[in-house]
Amino acid sequence: MKKFIDDPNSLLDTSLQGFAKAHADILELNLEPHFVYRKQRKSGKVALISGGGSGHEPLHSGFVGFGMLDAACPGQVFTSPTPDQMMAAAEAVDGGAGVLFIVKNYAGDVMNFEMAGEMLALPNASVLVNDDISLPKSHSIGRRGVAGTTIVEKIVGAAAEAGADLASCKALGERVNQATASLGVALTSCTVPALGHPTFALAEDEMEYGVGIHGERGRETVKLAGASEIVAQLAEHIADELQIGTGQHALLHVNGFGATPLIELHSIYELAWQQFNRRGLNIQRSLVGNFTTSLDMAGCSLTLTLLDDEMLAYWDAPVNTAALRWGC
Amino acid sequence: MKKFIDDPNSLLDTSLQGFAKAHADILELNLEPHFVYRKQRKSGKVALISGGGSGHEPLHSGFVGFGMLDAACPGQVFTSPTPDQMMAAAEAVDGGAGVLFIVKNYAGDVMNFEMAGEMLALPNASVLVNDDISLPKSHSIGRRGVAGTTIVEKIVGAAAEAGADLASCKALGERVNQATASLGVALTSCTVPALGHPTFALAEDEMEYGVGIHGERGRETVKLAGASEIVAQLAEHIADELQIGTGQHALLHVNGFGATPLIELHSIYELAWQQFNRRGLNIQRSLVGNFTTSLDMAGCSLTLTLLDDEMLAYWDAPVNTAALRWGC
Repeated sequence: MKKFIDDPNSLLDTSLQGFAKAHADILELNLEPHFVYRKQRKSGKVALISGGGSGHEPLHSGFVGFGMLDAACPGQVFTSPTPDQMMAAAEAVDGGAGVLFIVKNYAGDVMNFEMAGEMLALPNASVLVNDDISLPKSHSIGRRGVAGTTIVEKIVGAAAEAGADLASCKALGERVNQATASLGVALTSCTVPALGHPTFALAEDEMEYGVGIHGERGRETVKLAGASEIVAQLAEHIADELQIGTGQHALLHVNGFGATPLIELHSIYELAWQQFNRRGLNIQRSLVGNFTTSLDMAGCSLTLTLLDDEMLAYWDAPVNTAALRWGC
Repeated sequence: MKKFIDDPNSLLDTSLQGFAKAHADILELNLEPHFVYRKQRKSGKVALISGGGSGHEPLHSGFVGFGMLDAACPGQVFTSPTPDQMMAAAEAVDGGAGVLFIVKNYAGDVMNFEMAGEMLALPNASVLVNDDISLPKSHSIGRRGVAGTTIVEKIVGAAAEAGADLASCKALGERVNQATASLGVALTSCTVPALGHPTFALAEDEMEYGVGIHGERGRETVKLAGASEIVAQLAEHIADELQIGTGQHALLHVNGFGATPLIELHSIYELAWQQFNRRGLNIQRSLVGNFTTSLDMAGCSLTLTLLDDEMLAYWDAPVNTAALRWGC
């Protein structure tokens, strides 16, 4: 394993300390239990909290700040955070208008956020994100939450900042999740520091179609194809899933898993734009880069969100976080 | 080679088209010859142009926009752009106050920018960036320009935006370059698409100390060490080079080469901050992330810039580009 670490057990603490120092204008760090939270808080605003295993940065800690999350609870690498983190974070950022959890659909995350919500006696405490269409909705664990989470967090974050109440924030988050579909492809595995070797094996001429963001097997292992062919397949599945039609407005997000260079991600964006444009879609907004990563995995995903006017206005609203920043 | 491409020869064109579409609010693309340039131009402002081989994104195209570059000329992957690109870009963005080239110190880049400057009869046309301290100043090709280029482009970009004249912009750029030192380490090679295999070989227990951003051999191939030991060595060389002293102000930039996850880069930032803080340095600003990349290389560099008040004010000034954005 070739990584910049001293000890897998100290990596998260050291990293969070560096992250908090590098963004001390925006956020603060609580080390026991682990959470990062917004420096400038606002009373009377719905507090948004997300979290999940580490190794997906900038998701979620990079989205804490004005116009997006109030706090993020990082677990160890690819490991759910625990209820005590969520409860401490909620206590730190609750501004009196309620707390909403934004939770990716993984059993551990769901269970721990639910437990925290119960112990805090929070009503209607969460939005579940399950945008990954690689698994059928009928799958036993349901669909996973992947790169669409960024879109949900940005749009709901803007609504909360604008004064929307808890029920409106929750309903909006669920509407964005419904309007969002993602599908990804891995060219290589990632290596979890505590494990020390790649999570799975792919031959030099293979790729993993429908991969999860922890390197979970997807739909199938297939032969490596050219970029155009890969993108055409991803786009077709997404178009089918969302039943896209001519003239609809959309946000197209190309997400890198970590080790795929921007020169490839921008090329993927162009090819995907052509695919959706050919189907009559009006791509109004874009996001290209490494936002929901899987450590050092090479690969990428496409995420499409069908936008209504409200979502578009909230997407465009000012945001000031480590990883997304505009209008501030 | 596992990459998202159809054909190495079409990668750059497709990628630039996607990049321009994804950032159509900020910039425009000229395909023949290749350059990207600022959408909102300003007459009476010194025009800043940079460029170099592709594969280092977001450098330089991601830095085109308000408060930074007016245009960037991308060559093919790891290949210098040609004088016709620079001349066409200069024609497109010249606002009547002169054109300044910001050039990384590589023979091809220097020669081609010089040729363009001569053909355009530009006086004092360039700032040369050579912040990589892995090679001695006496080396036949001189020191290379690496991640410090981002710092030079941001600070000079803000000065030009504020109305500084050509001579002041050039002098400021040279001052920032003098105040900047970088040193990096590679854990893996990168793979150039047209080549199809890794540029160099490193054993599982080796790293390349002082590597260049195209995978050039550095000072030496050494045994892989823990993060603390690597950072201590990098910081010591940089501290010696800049002769840092107690109470000086600085910007610390941790740059990833492409495949190194943010969780590691933030940990490196923490360790580097401790090294410089221990030497009495006041780290006033930071930049952590993948800014000067080498395709899919795993590795990182430290860059330190000793800041004076003018540089600090220009660093903080508003910027609106694809890769750096604040205050706008």
